[in-house]
Amino acid sequence: MTARHVPHDALRRFIASAFVSQGLPAADAGQVAQLMADADLQGSDGHGVIRLPQYIKRIRAGGINKHPDIRVVHERAAMAVVHGDNGMGHLVVSKAVDIAIEKARSAGVAWVGTRYSNHAGPASLYARKPLQHDMLGLYFAVGNANHLPPWGGAEMLLSTNPIAAGIPGGDEPPVVLDMATTVAAYGKVKAKAKRGEPMPEGWMIDRQGRPLLDPTRAGEGFLLPIGEHKGYGLALIVGLLAGTLGGAAMGRDVIDFNADHVSVTNTGQAILVIDLAAFGDPARFKAQVDKLVRDIRGSERLPGVERIWLPGEQSHDKRQRYARDGIPVSAVLLDELNTLAADLGIAPLTPLAPLNPEVTA
Amino acid sequence: MTARHVPHDALRRFIASAFVSQGLPAADAGQVAQLMADADLQGSDGHGVIRLPQYIKRIRAGGINKHPDIRVVHERAAMAVVHGDNGMGHLVVSKAVDIAIEKARSAGVAWVGTRYSNHAGPASLYARKPLQHDMLGLYFAVGNANHLPPWGGAEMLLSTNPIAAGIPGGDEPPVVLDMATTVAAYGKVKAKAKRGEPMPEGWMIDRQGRPLLDPTRAGEGFLLPIGEHKGYGLALIVGLLAGTLGGAAMGRDVIDFNADHVSVTNTGQAILVIDLAAFGDPARFKAQVDKLVRDIRGSERLPGVERIWLPGEQSHDKRQRYARDGIPVSAVLLDELNTLAADLGIAPLTPLAPLNPEVTA
Repeated sequence: MTARHVPHDALRRFIASAFVSQGLPAADAGQVAQLMADADLQGSDGHGVIRLPQYIKRIRAGGINKHPDIRVVHERAAMAVVHGDNGMGHLVVSKAVDIAIEKARSAGVAWVGTRYSNHAGPASLYARKPLQHDMLGLYFAVGNANHLPPWGGAEMLLSTNPIAAGIPGGDEPPVVLDMATTVAAYGKVKAKAKRGEPMPEGWMIDRQGRPLLDPTRAGEGFLLPIGEHKGYGLALIVGLLAGTLGGAAMGRDVIDFNADHVSVTNTGQAILVIDLAAFGDPARFKAQVDKLVRDIRGSERLPGVERIWLPGEQSHDKRQRYARDGIPVSAVLLDELNTLAADLGIAPLTPLAPLNPEVTA
Repeated sequence: MTARHVPHDALRRFIASAFVSQGLPAADAGQVAQLMADADLQGSDGHGVIRLPQYIKRIRAGGINKHPDIRVVHERAAMAVVHGDNGMGHLVVSKAVDIAIEKARSAGVAWVGTRYSNHAGPASLYARKPLQHDMLGLYFAVGNANHLPPWGGAEMLLSTNPIAAGIPGGDEPPVVLDMATTVAAYGKVKAKAKRGEPMPEGWMIDRQGRPLLDPTRAGEGFLLPIGEHKGYGLALIVGLLAGTLGGAAMGRDVIDFNADHVSVTNTGQAILVIDLAAFGDPARFKAQVDKLVRDIRGSERLPGVERIWLPGEQSHDKRQRYARDGIPVSAVLLDELNTLAADLGIAPLTPLAPLNPEVTA
């Protein structure tokens, strides 16, 4: 069965109504729904509406504070720590980014960390947010389940702790990096299992250190960090910055939110915002980014390589295509969402008429 | 022939006298020499005294400004850009770090970039500097020769652009990461060539995209980034932050300082300093780092793994051992340095009596 397509706005409204049905205030539900639909719109489909059933499960289990007092607990001219009061991560991180943008406007640069936050979706959503203000963003987060041992180790003390960066171009799309510090994100392993495909060597090892290729046996092994000990070092540093520094969970304190829907996760994230205007004329910077982007895109390719991509270019393309044609949602996920809708007593998610009716007939 | 050992202080004085002989002011020569000897002391031997002949060559060729006016050209409460006036990179970056520490003390966080700087030695030297102030450091630099194409490309538009981080522990040594965004730093390739050993698969590819294993053919190929497209993305973001943002060279503008001793390199670096006290009690943070370090060090190991290392632990061990026993300098390098000394008319570098006289007899 092919995927069906859903308009961005319909997806946003569907998600919002699901949260409202569980007692989230309408404004908060709308903000989370916007960010989740935006994740799907840019092709971050492992972090968009696919997470809705899990979020609802956690809310119903009492694992999320529906009326959090999200507040600043430490503050200086160029930094703050936001206490999320165990609210939805999207709300906590959005507030952190807004504060960082305001502070960067005067101080030039600002760092805002979170504590008692929760899973907040794809890192790039937040690294991108400063772009519209002619600012750039760097984002760090502690992942919500430990899948990575230290290099040489067999105990999963680290998560896939992602790094994201958003850097504005002028006429060119922004350079947006969003990467786990492991070779594969855990969601990619789950996707391989769903499709019945083996994993490439280098994604995971088993407890003997041997390559693990069967994704259905993922529970018996560990993810591998990028660049061997280097990715381990990066995951550790990101965790110290996004977790420990802000007073959030790290190492053995990280809650596996796939298995535990009740415990307070005390998730930590951190955003660094830099105001381009503090460094000179933003237009000049953006013109230089454009030139670099074009130099890279137009540079000599290895045999057999069709195109050189810039980080963020593929999600930029998807954003434009999906805004026009709708967001693809697999039939399996659509079924799952509409079972949830019936359970919650909300209107189902209605896809657009199939683009290729003869295929789905 | 085994390596000889040189006391840290003798090495520092030797380097300083070499620079003074070329007309660098004594204070500047002393500061660069201290940092270069410190690099060797922590085992960063690709970035210490081994670079002296190249630096001297550049100074003699007129490629370094011996009397630079190193000055702030942009400034706000939490940021600055330092114009290095083509002085020795060690001087420029040291000034940048000092400014960042001062600004972080009041603003909580500060970012200082450089332009018209030069090669400054190992990244970790600068990321470590804030530690003594109960601050942490993150450091980014544009490498001084492009060895890395974009992912899928065959034109070397990027360098090994390193990332370093220094995070203080309490009783434990600090966590210090210092990594190129390529699988191997170019210096490691040169070392393999010197030893006549092949490179492991994964370090380099040739212009057809095939594994390149012969290090003497390194000029025919490219370094590979860590985590494939991820390392490419990291190298690009680091270059945009350390180069483009501060008004320094990036992409096609990067000068290969191994081949060109005259052109102004306009090297860029950037340091982010975070004051722990802004986030709460520094002692509490450092105790949490200690706990995490011990959890990791003591965690279960894969079969055959003797020890799990923390980033920076091996250089910490070396720093203590070399301070006691002297810094190992290969006989080949010692010869090269003393040929240089004769040429410069300075006193030679005298090693300690061999530790194992029977081996060198």
